Amino acid sequence: MSATIQKPKIGIIGTGAIGGFYGVMLAKAGFDVHFLLRSEFSAVAEHGLQLNSAPYGAVTLNPVQAYSSAEDMPLCDWLLVGTKTTGNAALAPTIIKAAAADAKVLLLQNGLDVEDSLRDALPDSLHLLGGLCFICVHRAGPGVIEHQALGAVHLGYHSGPAQAEEPARQQIVEQGAGLFRAAGLDSQAMANLAQARWQKLVWNVPYNGLSVLLGASTTPLMADENSRQLIQALMAEVVQGAQACGYSMPAGYAEHLFKVTEHMPDYWPSMYHDYLNKRPLELAAIYERPLAAAKAAGCSLPKIEALYQALSFIDGRNG
Amino acid sequence: MSATIQKPKIGIIGTGAIGGFYGVMLAKAGFDVHFLLRSEFSAVAEHGLQLNSAPYGAVTLNPVQAYSSAEDMPLCDWLLVGTKTTGNAALAPTIIKAAAADAKVLLLQNGLDVEDSLRDALPDSLHLLGGLCFICVHRAGPGVIEHQALGAVHLGYHSGPAQAEEPARQQIVEQGAGLFRAAGLDSQAMANLAQARWQKLVWNVPYNGLSVLLGASTTPLMADENSRQLIQALMAEVVQGAQACGYSMPAGYAEHLFKVTEHMPDYWPSMYHDYLNKRPLELAAIYERPLAAAKAAGCSLPKIEALYQALSFIDGRNG
Repeated sequence: MSATIQKPKIGIIGTGAIGGFYGVMLAKAGFDVHFLLRSEFSAVAEHGLQLNSAPYGAVTLNPVQAYSSAEDMPLCDWLLVGTKTTGNAALAPTIIKAAAADAKVLLLQNGLDVEDSLRDALPDSLHLLGGLCFICVHRAGPGVIEHQALGAVHLGYHSGPAQAEEPARQQIVEQGAGLFRAAGLDSQAMANLAQARWQKLVWNVPYNGLSVLLGASTTPLMADENSRQLIQALMAEVVQGAQACGYSMPAGYAEHLFKVTEHMPDYWPSMYHDYLNKRPLELAAIYERPLAAAKAAGCSLPKIEALYQALSFIDGRNG
Repeated sequence: MSATIQKPKIGIIGTGAIGGFYGVMLAKAGFDVHFLLRSEFSAVAEHGLQLNSAPYGAVTLNPVQAYSSAEDMPLCDWLLVGTKTTGNAALAPTIIKAAAADAKVLLLQNGLDVEDSLRDALPDSLHLLGGLCFICVHRAGPGVIEHQALGAVHLGYHSGPAQAEEPARQQIVEQGAGLFRAAGLDSQAMANLAQARWQKLVWNVPYNGLSVLLGASTTPLMADENSRQLIQALMAEVVQGAQACGYSMPAGYAEHLFKVTEHMPDYWPSMYHDYLNKRPLELAAIYERPLAAAKAAGCSLPKIEALYQALSFIDGRNG
């Protein structure tokens, strides 16, 4: 039977740093990957995708199955969404055009409940999953992706036809994790997506926001006693918020992420790149919704709130 | 007897925006005022002091009784200190040289306990007072002072020969307030200096810090809903900290300062000028000591703490 198993068709919606990295890695692993692009379509159609990876070396994908419109794409079994959460509400028509009847749509995005605004606009037949990427990667130019370190993806089921059936749900999540593992990347199936999203917030809340607020990448942030204390206090509040919402972090989780960051290459989080490029910051996903969820559970997170308000001010002037 | 009362000799230690403004106003009111300067001595000795005041118009003081060294100054009855709190510990020798035997030394500085480091180094015969300036003023160039609005000084007795005698203490504070009133400025004698310092912190904690952190003056800070909420939350924490330390604010005091700021001309607080000119920020006086005092009283002020940590990081990189 295994001879008849077809490799799934994978579509990348939004070929930026995240979409580009995972798309290239999957294509190089032999998957049939189709890339949707907007402003960089011509550059990528002409020159391909260039991944400069510290751990994997220089990887070129050329030619690229590149598309400037979702209508031109083949129907895909898996759609990996690497766009900004700020555009999720408007993303449904694009996804619907590129999705096979029972496609799995995987949002490779940070933040809480980023699936919600999209879910309502998707047909019930589509599976919706969320993925958290533990990776240091950024876009260096049209079709050029710099990968500094890490690469793991932890994913969980959000909603869709398998929602009520635990084994079916788990199978789909495992299948997704299998794609990344086949590409040589660490990937874990998470039993609870909200839990996974809160865990990722332990990193994103301090580092994304402080990179913009203080104009600083991870190395200087980890070298100064004041910013270290602030990072740890923010992490502790995320853990507190998660707990109030019913999600307990693994013991020592914040300390673990703190240590991991200490040993990372110097890194500018994605929010800093958004700020620099005058894109809207992902404040709703990373700050507003976690704060609201914690508040609804009776838990106030004063330092995160102060950070959120400061970032909102900055975001409002950055337009 | 009143015919024999001499006008006091007034010395200005540090002729920046604050020292310059009050010195010029007192000199114009007929007081015998002596100005100590450092880098701007030559400019002021040659061109005098120029005060451009929105409420009072253009005021020129020329010639100026200017000195580049405290040794050259006559012994003064009142010394008004307008230098940065960050230099207080080293200020004693200068003050001692310019002070009459029972001189009153008035620190026109923001922050908590700014007198303490100086007190230990001063002879017991000197009265030490603190003054809080409610004023929008900045230095526009060598010897040039821009005064946008307000001008009140609230002062209180810190320590010295009159420490144990309430009436004598009060008389000295009233005498100090009388100087400013004689110059046409609002001035109040405060029964409790620490109380007065906490009250002033209600303004300084949010606006000084946020001007640096967000690169924003008062008008944009008061125009944005996020920064307004953050300012109000920071003010509320100062009030909370003061209360924990035993100082109750007058009812509606924070709301009052918030409203006053709304009707002020657009203003860059002094900390922003310090930041811009790469001077050390007055973080100990305005943040560290209030936080420590509140903590010692069992009160945590998480948003002020986060702001302080962020500013400390910025200050450390600004050197």
